[in-house]
Order: sequence, then structure tokens, then C-alpha cells
Amino acid sequence: MRRFKITLSYDGTNYHGWQVQPELSTVQGTLESVIAQIEGATVHVEGSGRTDAGVHGLAQVAAFDLENPIPVENLRKAVNRLLPRDIRVLAVEEAAADFHPRFAARAKTYEYRILRSELCSPFERLYVYHHPYPLDEKKMIEFAPLAEGEHDFSAFAASDDTDELGRSKVRTIFSSRLAREQDRLIYRVRGTGFLKHMVRNIVGVLLEAGKGNFTRADLEARLKPGCGIPPGPSAPARGLFMIGVEYE
Amino acid sequence: MRRFKITLSYDGTNYHGWQVQPELSTVQGTLESVIAQIEGATVHVEGSGRTDAGVHGLAQVAAFDLENPIPVENLRKAVNRLLPRDIRVLAVEEAAADFHPRFAARAKTYEYRILRSELCSPFERLYVYHHPYPLDEKKMIEFAPLAEGEHDFSAFAASDDTDELGRSKVRTIFSSRLAREQDRLIYRVRGTGFLKHMVRNIVGVLLEAGKGNFTRADLEARLKPGCGIPPGPSAPARGLFMIGVEYE
Repeated sequence: MRRFKITLSYDGTNYHGWQVQPELSTVQGTLESVIAQIEGATVHVEGSGRTDAGVHGLAQVAAFDLENPIPVENLRKAVNRLLPRDIRVLAVEEAAADFHPRFAARAKTYEYRILRSELCSPFERLYVYHHPYPLDEKKMIEFAPLAEGEHDFSAFAASDDTDELGRSKVRTIFSSRLAREQDRLIYRVRGTGFLKHMVRNIVGVLLEAGKGNFTRADLEARLKPGCGIPPGPSAPARGLFMIGVEYE
Repeated sequence: MRRFKITLSYDGTNYHGWQVQPELSTVQGTLESVIAQIEGATVHVEGSGRTDAGVHGLAQVAAFDLENPIPVENLRKAVNRLLPRDIRVLAVEEAAADFHPRFAARAKTYEYRILRSELCSPFERLYVYHHPYPLDEKKMIEFAPLAEGEHDFSAFAASDDTDELGRSKVRTIFSSRLAREQDRLIYRVRGTGFLKHMVRNIVGVLLEAGKGNFTRADLEARLKPGCGIPPGPSAPARGLFMIGVEYE
């Protein structure tokens, strides 16, 4: 049995997110069915983390085990040949038998793209959040780093998060920056891990600040442990890209 | 009654081409239904030319008449608000009452994109023809200008073209060039007008030459009047973009 680490890119538009769900098309489910064809048996593909419906991947990482003696480079080609063209395996390498793409991750980086021009090209419509309306961008850029550090991100969790196990919502964000790049605002966030909807909710709150609805104190209040403030609003999924996972 | 000239961009992926067809979603049909909503009456939208199913538009031109006294700039915004996001009106201007976007066109330009890298990004899959296999690109680049000048393009017409009116298939091509640009081959062709499938068939024949299946003499034979050679093969629609129409 060999373990493989794969890096992949996907257009999330036509998927109900990463995680396998009965009767729905998902990225994980599509990968598992293609790799099972090669193996001739059921294969479990473990991802570095889940992405929501409509969220894209530029360099998502996943892992799985195979008995099949296929050479690494042929495996990459065989998987790409069988996958639909909206998922591509960029790289395959052999990994340690105990490699776990989520537990071994030291940091993950996401990018959120907000298009500010009046028109959004038809060719970009699925890959940016088009927001051509007035925003105090200076304030948004100034507030973005408030999320850096170790915080209880309960006020940025998914609003449907009913974790009865009471697991910690404390996460460490190494970098949280917003920048104007040509006709778009690009938010990049790098951290140890992220709650469901967390990046979209940080962007949603920054957008509210940009609209003048939230002050610096409103943002700070949301980062206080046990603040009890309900999460939201979420920025739309299509602007979000999982852009990389770092390992030791 | 005022006449308007509009310039528009569209992602052709989800349309059965430009021209209205019963029960099918087309670019022209979608525009006509949106503009009819604004006018409160049936409106005919005339295009500079048809594009096939899956072909994209970067700056297609069309025209229509309105009784509605809406200001030009508001018209552009109103149409974009009602259109699906895969069609965008880039510009609207008032035109002469007799302006006809097809008859008045002095030249049209198309671009065809062939991606040569081994992998095709999921985000580009609908906007290039991915051909990572060997091609004699030098020969293709050398042969592309053979289409320049006035020729009978019967051997580059649609294979389902059964024009019983016997209309001329002579067209004048001002420029027909292929160039390597980073990881892709870009074919640009500018001419007075194009037959159905003509650009895709020129690219298809250049690809055959690149594969070593056609010589310079094979291409020249196809450009001889009355050569009787059946058209084809056609390069896939998704690599083709209508990029502009020129008027006096």
C-alpha cells in the first residue's frame, strides 16, 4: 500500500462543495469515484479542509492510499484523463504512510476577489464578487489586519453551525490583508485553520465596514471571546479561492 | 423611433449560438426578450453576424429600434440589469435610422486560442482549445497567411451548408496570422465577412498541417475556386472569439 499526496485545482461552480454528500456532485466524491476506477476498489480521499459550494481551489491538497502499482507520473495523467475538466490534478507525489493533509497542515491560505469596476466581464462572472457600489476601501484595508492573531472566531462561524460538542472556535491567523490591485480588492488570509464560512464572513464584515455600517469597535467586539454576536453576513462563495496549504 | 447600436460581450458556453431558434437559448433571443421588456413590445435585434453554439463574443455589435424615450446611458444599465451575467452590454450609442450592423460592417475580426501547455486550468477550460500534443507550429505559422486575399472559401464552409440559392462563397481576408504567445497559439483573422464555420475550419486545416497530415499544396488546393474538396475538420467552438467589427 502506498500513500499519495495530490495538489489540485478546481472550478467550484458546478459542485456542492468539497465534501461527499449523498446524491450531490462534490469535488471529493468526484475524485473518489475516479480513483476507485483506477484502483478497482473503494478509495477514501482525505482533503486538507472542506470548501463550500461554489468556492474554487487553486492548490488544494488531498491524500489517499493505493494498492495499484502504477508509477506516480502515470497516476497523475490517468486521474486527469478520467476527471471532468473542471478539476485538474497539478501534482502527485508519494507521501509517508501516516501523512494526513489536514492534521499535518501548518498553514492554509485563502484569497477573496472583489471586482470594483462598473462592468464584470462574462468570463469573470463566476470567479469574482462584483461589487461596483461605493465602499470606503481605505477603512476596509485598515481594518483587515484586526483579524490577525489568536481569536475566538465564533462570530465568524457558519450561521448553521450547531456544534453540540462545543469544540473550540479559537484559531490563529498569521496574516489578514486587503489590498487594491488594479480594478479589484484582493483579500488574502493565512492561518492555522478556518471555521466553515469564516473567510467569507470576515470579508462580509469588512464589506459592511466599507459601507459604513460597522465601525472598528464593531469589528473588535466580534473578535472578543464569548461575544455572542450572531455571525454574518457572508460574502458570496464565487469570490473565494483556496490557494495553498503549507506542510513542514 | 430611435435606432441604437450596441457593443456586447458574451460567454457562448450556455447558448445555442447567436441566432434565435425556437425553444433554444440563444444570445439574440435573450437580448430580444430583455429589450422587449423595456420597450413593452416585440423588438428585433439585428447582429453583425451569427456566432455558432459555444463561440464567445468580446465585442459583437448589434442594433435595434425603440419608441421608449429612455436616455442612452440608462438604457445600457437597464439592459445589463435584466440580462443574465454571461451577456454584458459594453456600450450603447444612437445610430442612423438606416444603420445595419451586418451590411455596414467594413471588417470583422475573430481570434482562435489554442492552449499548448500540458495542463489546462479549470478556469480556462471553456475559453481555449487545449491541444497539448505535438504540432509543427513553424509550419502552421508559415501557412496561416495563405488564406489572405480574395478566395472561394467553399472548402471552409459548414459541412451542413446546403445553400440552394448558390450564393457566392468568395470572401476577402485582409489578414490571417498565427502566432505563439506564451503557452498558446493565437490565430487572428480579419476580413469582410465569414461563412458559417469558416474560421473554425481554417484553424482545423492549420491543425492538420501541424500534425503533418496536410502540405502547403493541400491548403492551396482548398483555396482554388470549385475545388470540390469537402470542408473540415472544424476546430472546437470554445476556442473562438468574435473580437470586433469595424464600421466607416
